[in-house]
Amino acid sequence: MSLLVVGSVAYDTVKTPTSQREDALGGSATFFSIASSYFTHVSIVAVIGEDFSSSDLEVFNVHKIDISGIEKKRGKTFRWSGLYTSEDLNTRTTLDTQLNVFADFTPKLNSTHIKTPYLFLANIDPSLQWYVLKNMQKRPKLVALDTMNFWIDGKKDELTRIIKCVDVLFIDENEVRSFTGENNLMKAAQIIMKLGPRTLVIKRGEHGVVMFNEAQIFSAPALILENLVDTTGAGDSFAGGFMGYIAATGNLSNQNFRRATIMGSVMGSLAVEGFSVDKLRNLTLHDVENRFKLFEQLTQFNFLSQNESIPWRTHTNHS
Amino acid sequence: MSLLVVGSVAYDTVKTPTSQREDALGGSATFFSIASSYFTHVSIVAVIGEDFSSSDLEVFNVHKIDISGIEKKRGKTFRWSGLYTSEDLNTRTTLDTQLNVFADFTPKLNSTHIKTPYLFLANIDPSLQWYVLKNMQKRPKLVALDTMNFWIDGKKDELTRIIKCVDVLFIDENEVRSFTGENNLMKAAQIIMKLGPRTLVIKRGEHGVVMFNEAQIFSAPALILENLVDTTGAGDSFAGGFMGYIAATGNLSNQNFRRATIMGSVMGSLAVEGFSVDKLRNLTLHDVENRFKLFEQLTQFNFLSQNESIPWRTHTNHS
Repeated sequence: MSLLVVGSVAYDTVKTPTSQREDALGGSATFFSIASSYFTHVSIVAVIGEDFSSSDLEVFNVHKIDISGIEKKRGKTFRWSGLYTSEDLNTRTTLDTQLNVFADFTPKLNSTHIKTPYLFLANIDPSLQWYVLKNMQKRPKLVALDTMNFWIDGKKDELTRIIKCVDVLFIDENEVRSFTGENNLMKAAQIIMKLGPRTLVIKRGEHGVVMFNEAQIFSAPALILENLVDTTGAGDSFAGGFMGYIAATGNLSNQNFRRATIMGSVMGSLAVEGFSVDKLRNLTLHDVENRFKLFEQLTQFNFLSQNESIPWRTHTNHS
Repeated sequence: MSLLVVGSVAYDTVKTPTSQREDALGGSATFFSIASSYFTHVSIVAVIGEDFSSSDLEVFNVHKIDISGIEKKRGKTFRWSGLYTSEDLNTRTTLDTQLNVFADFTPKLNSTHIKTPYLFLANIDPSLQWYVLKNMQKRPKLVALDTMNFWIDGKKDELTRIIKCVDVLFIDENEVRSFTGENNLMKAAQIIMKLGPRTLVIKRGEHGVVMFNEAQIFSAPALILENLVDTTGAGDSFAGGFMGYIAATGNLSNQNFRRATIMGSVMGSLAVEGFSVDKLRNLTLHDVENRFKLFEQLTQFNFLSQNESIPWRTHTNHS
């Protein structure tokens, strides 16, 4: 089943403690669409400038991503520049943001886009996220949304309005605290889910992901990676793996959401092993299967079966 | 099989953002021995002062903990006072430490102690940890050690000497970085394991635990707790559940170490739901089984079986 993403396509300049890269292909819709393209048909709605190179556009074509919704406008492509200050690439500072053609972005949805059954509203202005959802021909089977502190701080009302209408919210650990004003993660999750989303995926960087889905909680660890190159786009690659897997299987059960969470972790963990989309764009089924198995090995333990019991000292006697 | 712990028995004064408690039963050997006592026979070697109350001593007796190694000396019991500054009880400040009788603690090992097959060297001066290990009649089947930044900063050589001789090292995420001088957790783990330990259990607080065991890595999440009361002793309760389970089963396989890691997480997560040992001392098999099942539910996902495959768009063709 097909998947629609509305978000940014950008050129990123990234500095890490050991390396740097200028004007590399980036943006939320870029990472998301490439990650999901391995599993399902994906269409992208975004805007680029006149300076956007044809070889970068070819990256989408190679992945059979529908780019009919990428509008080319006069001016320059959205540019972001960031500096990772610690070796674990967990803390970053934005050095520069040039919105350029993204400044007055209005998503252009064609007649195919508006019928798409799976929709991902990447991290953009919540008013635009609202606009996209309201212009779908009918309510998609599953709507997911990502956001960031910038919108929590600056457009809380608009953000709350759209969060109330989505099925899945992807959000960082600190963002969920600042959005709800609640430090306890369990209580914060309950506040969000009362607003509307049935599923809440809290991203914790190097500590993995926690998914609240209806009454269940699922915790997926992060791999301990030896060669972390660039964490830019990790969250969008995660969301791409998650939503791509859900759209490909068409299965909205809790068990499938758990597997989707692992598939998201697989794509996120592969993405950060290269700058920009260098690694993400060159994956094979073999890479993804092996990474999925690593997550199995990382988390698997023998459950208690009915014939097995915990060794317990029955003579323990409490006063 | 029996288990020996050498560590501290203390009175703790703990302040959290919402509550406080004075002179409550604490100390590494206390939390460890109570947690492990549910699974196996445990002996404790420690020192207390004349002010130690008989009702607190009774807590050990009720759990059938052998306290013949608890020496009562002239003076006051070791006292620690700490303030948790954040609601998630992850960051704390030590307000006061009074070593008292602990200042010149020399472990007194009797003829039974030195034959114990499972040994836990709780967080004390590495010279004392060394002394205990060297005075065992023969090398125990499994020796585990806990430490803290205080010894990493102040007695690195002595600490390194004892770490080289143990099988299992329990250590905090930040401590493993400061001990090795390596920020990358995978590389830091390799440095530690080259020194000697076959097993390294890295404690990450609210983010759970990662266990490196020979060539395998196991990641156990923390539960998302709604009612966190006091995280003092969480690490020792974890170690108690881990070592108690290993000693009770006598099984040193990788699979059993994984289950021991979950059992440690079970005991740690129960301990922090009460002040001091309030909750830890009153557990039933039912409590522990239910908590173990929560960890199963939290982490379980359908693995890829041989008949199942990842939905993959085979027409994806890389240039």
